[in-house]
Amino acid sequence: MPVSNERLANDLAAIAAATETPGQGATRPTFSDAWAKAVEHVAAAARACGCVVRTDAAGNVHLRPSVHDRASSLWLSGSHLDTVPHGGDFDGVVGVLVPLEVLRAAHVDSRTAPPLELIIFAEEEGTTFGLGMIGSRAWAGTLGADQLAQLRNAVGQSYLEAGSRHGVRAVCLANERIDATHYCGYIEVHIEQGPSMWNRQEPVAVVTTIAGRRQYHVDVTGTANHAGSTKMADRRDALAAAAEMIGAVESLPAALASGAVATVGRIACRPNAVNVIAEHVSFTIDFRGAADDILEQGDSAIRAQLTAIAQKRGVHAAIQLTESIDATELSPTACRRLREAAGQLGHSLPETVSGALHDAAILAPYVPTAMLFVASRDGISHNPAEHSRIDDIALAAQILYTAVSGGEGEVA
Amino acid sequence: MPVSNERLANDLAAIAAATETPGQGATRPTFSDAWAKAVEHVAAAARACGCVVRTDAAGNVHLRPSVHDRASSLWLSGSHLDTVPHGGDFDGVVGVLVPLEVLRAAHVDSRTAPPLELIIFAEEEGTTFGLGMIGSRAWAGTLGADQLAQLRNAVGQSYLEAGSRHGVRAVCLANERIDATHYCGYIEVHIEQGPSMWNRQEPVAVVTTIAGRRQYHVDVTGTANHAGSTKMADRRDALAAAAEMIGAVESLPAALASGAVATVGRIACRPNAVNVIAEHVSFTIDFRGAADDILEQGDSAIRAQLTAIAQKRGVHAAIQLTESIDATELSPTACRRLREAAGQLGHSLPETVSGALHDAAILAPYVPTAMLFVASRDGISHNPAEHSRIDDIALAAQILYTAVSGGEGEVA
Repeated sequence: MPVSNERLANDLAAIAAATETPGQGATRPTFSDAWAKAVEHVAAAARACGCVVRTDAAGNVHLRPSVHDRASSLWLSGSHLDTVPHGGDFDGVVGVLVPLEVLRAAHVDSRTAPPLELIIFAEEEGTTFGLGMIGSRAWAGTLGADQLAQLRNAVGQSYLEAGSRHGVRAVCLANERIDATHYCGYIEVHIEQGPSMWNRQEPVAVVTTIAGRRQYHVDVTGTANHAGSTKMADRRDALAAAAEMIGAVESLPAALASGAVATVGRIACRPNAVNVIAEHVSFTIDFRGAADDILEQGDSAIRAQLTAIAQKRGVHAAIQLTESIDATELSPTACRRLREAAGQLGHSLPETVSGALHDAAILAPYVPTAMLFVASRDGISHNPAEHSRIDDIALAAQILYTAVSGGEGEVA
Repeated sequence: MPVSNERLANDLAAIAAATETPGQGATRPTFSDAWAKAVEHVAAAARACGCVVRTDAAGNVHLRPSVHDRASSLWLSGSHLDTVPHGGDFDGVVGVLVPLEVLRAAHVDSRTAPPLELIIFAEEEGTTFGLGMIGSRAWAGTLGADQLAQLRNAVGQSYLEAGSRHGVRAVCLANERIDATHYCGYIEVHIEQGPSMWNRQEPVAVVTTIAGRRQYHVDVTGTANHAGSTKMADRRDALAAAAEMIGAVESLPAALASGAVATVGRIACRPNAVNVIAEHVSFTIDFRGAADDILEQGDSAIRAQLTAIAQKRGVHAAIQLTESIDATELSPTACRRLREAAGQLGHSLPETVSGALHDAAILAPYVPTAMLFVASRDGISHNPAEHSRIDDIALAAQILYTAVSGGEGEVA
């Protein structure tokens, strides 16, 4: 199995160098120069082993061995290169470099290119345009040009505007949607981003379910007033109210099924002055659960508790659901294929549930979809300290190579 | 008594028009164009009634009738024209316009100018350079050039740099400090900024004590991590910790003496992304009490409670005291003078305590100092809805006129 740890390590270093915040983690907003540099590194390496590069109308980059004609059915594998601000060097990147290494290993070994198309999805994280997995959603057709025109980045450009220099074409979106007949299935390799596998010493696991996610934007409106001369009883303090709401959100998972998580990660306050009682606070909620009934229960609890806190304090709370993705069971057939490939390599793959969402959740309704998780050191992710072992990443590459080749009766 | 309601109303409208946020309240950061325009309106009106304009090295503007030579002892009265962002049209402004109207009323009435110097203090609010009452502190000598060089506004200019176009001169600070022999005392007129007087139908009151203030900057550091794949038990969430701390700060006054207040008005979160557990949150605390032992008790409680919350959650909290001003008893003699002046006008002045800090608290150790409060409609302040009645402001002007003139045996 000619998978090379050294090539994988070199690729990781090259992508890590493409960041807006050198020395302070990976910052690659979608369509930024840093992001384009990372995409080009992968595209150049894929071209060098005989791949044709194509960008679909949604901005996703497809790298397909030229020996396979475009109509033939290949396995699809990939992930994303965009990051959260000050993120890590492995999130998304591992899932792009593993299929690249499979294509390259075959090429170096002078084998026929495996039936594998590499995809780099645009804007998975959701921090650039305020919505996650835009590239895969638009390719799948669940997000249209009208919506892409409304999603804006920090400098006010829409996804269509910012993406126009990177292949995004609103008029072609409908014609360039995913055609399931072109794909045997989708296999996404990703770091776990939690500590479970690392703690259990599981280098690679197969994901059977992806937790669903609800995201909310909450606006709390009170009354601005003087911090010195307004008695505590006379206040309608938007920040004190938001603080109590954040506590309620944090307490929510304990009242629901094990494994549910809820996070307030973003907050803004106005006028945000040391001696003025806050008039307006907005914050986000990210709530996840492994089953849809848990998501429903959580939704009801969030609305009830935040509304009760607002009423008690005489402030107004507007709760807006900004995203809703159901929990996704992945393809049992595709998962079995991965277990069998691992078995051929002498490994037994444990099963796990993904708390994080991935492009795999978007593609699952269209093609048989599976995921491989690689252990994350101490579970740290979305952080410059994020790390996974090269040996574990290489094992995932061997499993992917075997899984996609084996289907053709051509075990590598 | 030739005090004119109409002139006061015209002045209020002219100052209100000098704002960076027309239609959204008064926004006059110190040394901004809007602030300079407001200062010039007052200076021009004072010049027109025979005043000489002088800016001291700290940036405070003095308007003194030219008939009184510079060495003679006058009453000092004034306040500030800078505002919080989106503030009201009365905070500070009333205290500048009342002595202006006294000088003007005497001038229009062809009387000898009263023994009164009008002062416009620079940067009272504390929202432009992160510290309140800079102009009065620097004039009193409790703030030196070194510190003024470190206080910076939103665009990174120090107080000395931003003030250089407006008369601030570091080299002259030591020579131009307040000389108590030049002043009989200081009388500051200010709106109450709380609802007590309005609710009790007291148009004007004399302030006997100014509450002390402690301000803090708190840095909470946790660990950034993925909002989906990090179990609740594995988190060190800086924003959830800060939210619990904000709740503790809000609960503090109830455990202390009646009338103490505590406010968290400013917050910042990093990386501030919807799907990332917060790594770092900073927030401010503004805590006030009418006696120094209350301030001490509150200080201990804040430190103990925030430290306990941080330890329980495995995050780090750094608590920095950024300002400490003791509670201030005002001059009984100066207060009596105001009560007697009101009595001559047929009014009985109620007494009150100021929850808000004012430049009067800075000057009180140097010259006999008193304050007059004017009722605030519904107690609303630091808000575009701030309002006080012209009749009440005019009554304060009549009392000030009588008080400063009476001392010279010259009842107006």
